[in-house]
Amino acid sequence: MSSIKVAVLGATGMVGQRFVQLLQGHPWFEIAAVTGSERSAGRTYGEACRWVLDTDMPLALRDMPILSSADQLDTPLVFSALPSSVAGPVEERLAAAGHVVCSNASNHRMAPDVPLLIPEVNPDHLGLIAIQRKQRGWSGAIVTNPNCTSTPVTMAFRPLLDAFGISRVLIVSMQALSGAGHPGIASYDAGDNVIPFIGGEEPKVESEPQKMLGALNDGQVINAGFATSAHCNRVPVLEGHLECVSIALERKADLEEFIAALRKFRALPQELCLPSAPAQPVIVRAEPDRPQIRRDRNASGGMATVVGRIRPCALFDYKFVALAHNTIRGAAGGSILNAELIVSQGYLG
Amino acid sequence: MSSIKVAVLGATGMVGQRFVQLLQGHPWFEIAAVTGSERSAGRTYGEACRWVLDTDMPLALRDMPILSSADQLDTPLVFSALPSSVAGPVEERLAAAGHVVCSNASNHRMAPDVPLLIPEVNPDHLGLIAIQRKQRGWSGAIVTNPNCTSTPVTMAFRPLLDAFGISRVLIVSMQALSGAGHPGIASYDAGDNVIPFIGGEEPKVESEPQKMLGALNDGQVINAGFATSAHCNRVPVLEGHLECVSIALERKADLEEFIAALRKFRALPQELCLPSAPAQPVIVRAEPDRPQIRRDRNASGGMATVVGRIRPCALFDYKFVALAHNTIRGAAGGSILNAELIVSQGYLG
Amino acid sequence: MSSIKVAVLGATGMVGQRFVQLLQGHPWFEIAAVTGSERSAGRTYGEACRWVLDTDMPLALRDMPILSSADQLDTPLVFSALPSSVAGPVEERLAAAGHVVCSNASNHRMAPDVPLLIPEVNPDHLGLIAIQRKQRGWSGAIVTNPNCTSTPVTMAFRPLLDAFGISRVLIVSMQALSGAGHPGIASYDAGDNVIPFIGGEEPKVESEPQKMLGALNDGQVINAGFATSAHCNRVPVLEGHLECVSIALERKADLEEFIAALRKFRALPQELCLPSAPAQPVIVRAEPDRPQIRRDRNASGGMATVVGRIRPCALFDYKFVALAHNTIRGAAGGSILNAELIVSQGYLG
Amino acid sequence: MSSIKVAVLGATGMVGQRFVQLLQGHPWFEIAAVTGSERSAGRTYGEACRWVLDTDMPLALRDMPILSSADQLDTPLVFSALPSSVAGPVEERLAAAGHVVCSNASNHRMAPDVPLLIPEVNPDHLGLIAIQRKQRGWSGAIVTNPNCTSTPVTMAFRPLLDAFGISRVLIVSMQALSGAGHPGIASYDAGDNVIPFIGGEEPKVESEPQKMLGALNDGQVINAGFATSAHCNRVPVLEGHLECVSIALERKADLEEFIAALRKFRALPQELCLPSAPAQPVIVRAEPDRPQIRRDRNASGGMATVVGRIRPCALFDYKFVALAHNTIRGAAGGSILNAELIVSQGYLG
Repeated sequence: MSSIKVAVLGATGMVGQRFVQLLQGHPWFEIAAVTGSERSAGRTYGEACRWVLDTDMPLALRDMPILSSADQLDTPLVFSALPSSVAGPVEERLAAAGHVVCSNASNHRMAPDVPLLIPEVNPDHLGLIAIQRKQRGWSGAIVTNPNCTSTPVTMAFRPLLDAFGISRVLIVSMQALSGAGHPGIASYDAGDNVIPFIGGEEPKVESEPQKMLGALNDGQVINAGFATSAHCNRVPVLEGHLECVSIALERKADLEEFIAALRKFRALPQELCLPSAPAQPVIVRAEPDRPQIRRDRNASGGMATVVGRIRPCALFDYKFVALAHNTIRGAAGGSILNAELIVSQGYLG
Repeated sequence: MSSIKVAVLGATGMVGQRFVQLLQGHPWFEIAAVTGSERSAGRTYGEACRWVLDTDMPLALRDMPILSSADQLDTPLVFSALPSSVAGPVEERLAAAGHVVCSNASNHRMAPDVPLLIPEVNPDHLGLIAIQRKQRGWSGAIVTNPNCTSTPVTMAFRPLLDAFGISRVLIVSMQALSGAGHPGIASYDAGDNVIPFIGGEEPKVESEPQKMLGALNDGQVINAGFATSAHCNRVPVLEGHLECVSIALERKADLEEFIAALRKFRALPQELCLPSAPAQPVIVRAEPDRPQIRRDRNASGGMATVVGRIRPCALFDYKFVALAHNTIRGAAGGSILNAELIVSQGYLG
Repeated sequence: MSSIKVAVLGATGMVGQRFVQLLQGHPWFEIAAVTGSERSAGRTYGEACRWVLDTDMPLALRDMPILSSADQLDTPLVFSALPSSVAGPVEERLAAAGHVVCSNASNHRMAPDVPLLIPEVNPDHLGLIAIQRKQRGWSGAIVTNPNCTSTPVTMAFRPLLDAFGISRVLIVSMQALSGAGHPGIASYDAGDNVIPFIGGEEPKVESEPQKMLGALNDGQVINAGFATSAHCNRVPVLEGHLECVSIALERKADLEEFIAALRKFRALPQELCLPSAPAQPVIVRAEPDRPQIRRDRNASGGMATVVGRIRPCALFDYKFVALAHNTIRGAAGGSILNAELIVSQGYLG
Repeated sequence: MSSIKVAVLGATGMVGQRFVQLLQGHPWFEIAAVTGSERSAGRTYGEACRWVLDTDMPLALRDMPILSSADQLDTPLVFSALPSSVAGPVEERLAAAGHVVCSNASNHRMAPDVPLLIPEVNPDHLGLIAIQRKQRGWSGAIVTNPNCTSTPVTMAFRPLLDAFGISRVLIVSMQALSGAGHPGIASYDAGDNVIPFIGGEEPKVESEPQKMLGALNDGQVINAGFATSAHCNRVPVLEGHLECVSIALERKADLEEFIAALRKFRALPQELCLPSAPAQPVIVRAEPDRPQIRRDRNASGGMATVVGRIRPCALFDYKFVALAHNTIRGAAGGSILNAELIVSQGYLG
């Protein structure tokens, strides 16, 4: 299989850099183009990108010219790390022009004909691509991945919903600084502090899982329909979002059944052995004090959701903690896995 | 009014040091004795105490000899910062010998005849002292203050319970490192991390508010009776516990009424102008991103609870954030305010 | 004495906020005007300033309109927290118009006729004001305070230079995040990291002490003339710059003499009891592990330099550690003390 | 080549865990035994070890019984992560019994007949083994690696000494929390703080490089003989020691020559392609703000020293910054590379 050329939109930002990092040495994909803001366009990636990740910028990218988002691309697959302030029309134009756009931006996530995809959760939602193409007259497509805080809980909810039904969930997040991008949160604001507010985050966490866990019927996603409330907090850690969850089920489950449902969860990406798929989507840890953000965020290369502290809840049925790496599984890595599923299912070209 | 001599038990630990710091220059109380572990006893406080607070050790304490907990004390009032592994019998012996012991230890908090006291919440529970003395044949008494995580939410619940009734609350805490004492959490465990577990904490947070908000009838406290679930987390901040709360009320309240109930809350310590009482027990901040741990923990000298982000909850009625300084209002400062109430109500000597 | 009206230029930034905070309740000065960028001008301080300090914004400032730097001011005294990109001409215009400008900006620090002032170090350099006025035809004046990293070492060097002479000093700084202003360093760059570079800082630390410790002769400052090398580093702390110093003296001093020279140092601000003057300019701590940034930065309200770990050096004569609060003594507080000296010496009006 | 059985002494501590982590999958060595304190002995490694590293404890170790240090070992090679309070006699007994002990403990580092070894710096010092065996009548040997702070500077000094001679060096370290072991520094002491003192560290940094860079003549190491002064500081980062160095050379070198000497440095471990050897012992970075602790500590798997900010010094000839991972290259990884050299040179069995 010869490699598929891809472009990364918004490649100089925090998530853009993660795309570049994770795509280095990818067995299927090869970066052929990167785009940046007007200020960056025309310079090389090495000149314009203030690289902030801990591994070095891939050598192959250093001399790659940065295109503007208005430039034409000739890669069949495009990853979008654009900010939501500009992503909307750029992604639409590219999809219309025949590109499959795997986007981390929030703009199209809730559009009825756009898959909001976690491959382990709702691979069948790729069926929306046909609707999207028909309705919009596009030859390409837009496929989105959820918000970094929606991701770990939705992965944990999938097997629970299937086994027991879900009636209500309360989610309190403790989110890493990298979630705000770079420069993002000022260090003087972050140090020795918790900021109990993240603009626009709670509505996303309350709505996105509903769509992903909904059933696709007759070309329409019917939301899962359980009630959700979210509190979102910024805590002084670099990477990794940890979430405390209280969940009420529709059918009673004893503790062993509940844990077993999470532990035995495997899905299509695992079956297909997609390159970025973790061996297990959800890793359950038995220690009383795990998952911890720093010690568990890189489980399975940052692609697994780690769950722990599963115990009864006095108000709901169970409470637990879920963790995932926010810029890997929750952003660039999630989008790359989406692309892998798209390719494997024949939606590209 | 001449000053009342007090002793501080366990004076070399994190909370013991806060007692020493806060009692310096106190208008009513003067430290006349300090106790420490067997290892410290016989040395001076200056020699034996590894002082960790940011203000200097009070000069007057440097040459004070450290007594052992077996020594006799001649102060009518005793503050206990003893670890729960040793506090039980020591405090009982002192109460039997006529001392009023204001204890931060958890040992006696839930005993039916021991007041678990926040002066703004349940000052009438001091009535248990008479029962305690009678039942136990003591001339002194033990009065406890709650766990540092129970404190801020209970202060916020008092006016809400009175105005609207409370049926259910879910609490997710983000707790400071100082809550584990000194040395407490290893820096290698704390940095760039969240630890979603604090041993023994959740049961305390689920039970203590019930007792404090309960009614004292015929010498018995009838628990408040609302259902509570708590998730407790350790976050990398130095001081201040922040808690996300979702609350269901018994009677409907609109948002303005809810906020007004918190804002207008004043109680006996404010009326009596007790020296350590904050002007308002609960400060409500209107900014979308407050309270923040570092910026609000020292409100009113660390004695106020700061509440913010009051908004509707999709599962309960409202959600909000509450914050208090864990070693001031949540420990030593709370205990000192308890003593001030005890003195003002004539329970001392 | 009725209060002197002052203006704060650049009042919405990190140092500007410190000026506002420290001037609240000042016994001599009262803020009558604040200026901000074009974006802020015309709005109130409460609207335009994203207040980042831990105490609340002073009530009196909330409704104060923000002027632009082009507006005329009618305060005899002006504090400048302007960024160096704009401070130069603005400060000159104000000085020409009769204002005494106490500036934290670097623009005029090294001008031969501008005092670079630490009141304990070189109060006689105020004599340059006469030269400045004569040469420039100004009725006002510009007086500057040094860089936040130059300040603590220069305060420590004064008594050492007087007692023993100084031939060489090597300085390695560990500087707080607040030194970069707000938003300054991104939290993602700062966490779990040391950045061994601060643009433009080392030349300042190598030159400013020379001028301050130089002698004023015939209207000219003759630099102190000892050789200096500086390494500047950014460390993940919020406030306080700590510096490791190795120093070679011109005349031999034994360790006791060296320590005594620092300990007994008092200067004009202490003699005059200026409101912001610390009781001792240099506090020497004897513990092996002090000063520590968090525990000592607020000594004497952040206005003292704290020195410790004084010991022989294998290459120079002695080595020690010096610490001061970078936005208080090293910026706004230093500038306010400068103004107090200026007023007390009759240079205002 | 069949694998060589090794034991790890003190395997439950911070450095012991690094040995276990780094030896997992090692091409030459296989852990056959681990020892721990009296309290741990008799339990399995999985039970007794509070694993603190971010990768999971190797499965193969979980059920391995922990031996006491008094037990007999049957591995030819022994790695010692023992605390210096107990390492001395234990290591001697094992060396006498025929084991080659690669020790991270400080006890024998400065003994005249014990190699203090960095394979890139002084591989010929292994010649001391013959002296040691003869003098002590041992069939085994003790070989030590230096203190974690001595390591990076000594690696950088090797090519500079060879090319230009060294007359004086001043070193100011900023050291990670993990250097104090686990639990080590209390989180309440570490947060938002710099502690300018590390007990016993400065003398090590001032003496160990002298020995390693000394010449072995007639069975004796003649110290390198340049004068050294060190200031050691603890900063709030997890891993990685960064050091500011000012260096005076014996022969003048222009900046390009100085940099080139570092850049082109290769040594025996690189020539032999030892499994743990980095491709370059010293990586020189040209960016003005590198190396940074978090972004460069893992260069070459934590086995390289990263140097940057090379520039002239007003007092010495040059100044620069050097960084290495303190528990990898500066401890367990350094010791493993020592063992690889020992094996490759035929000193084992």
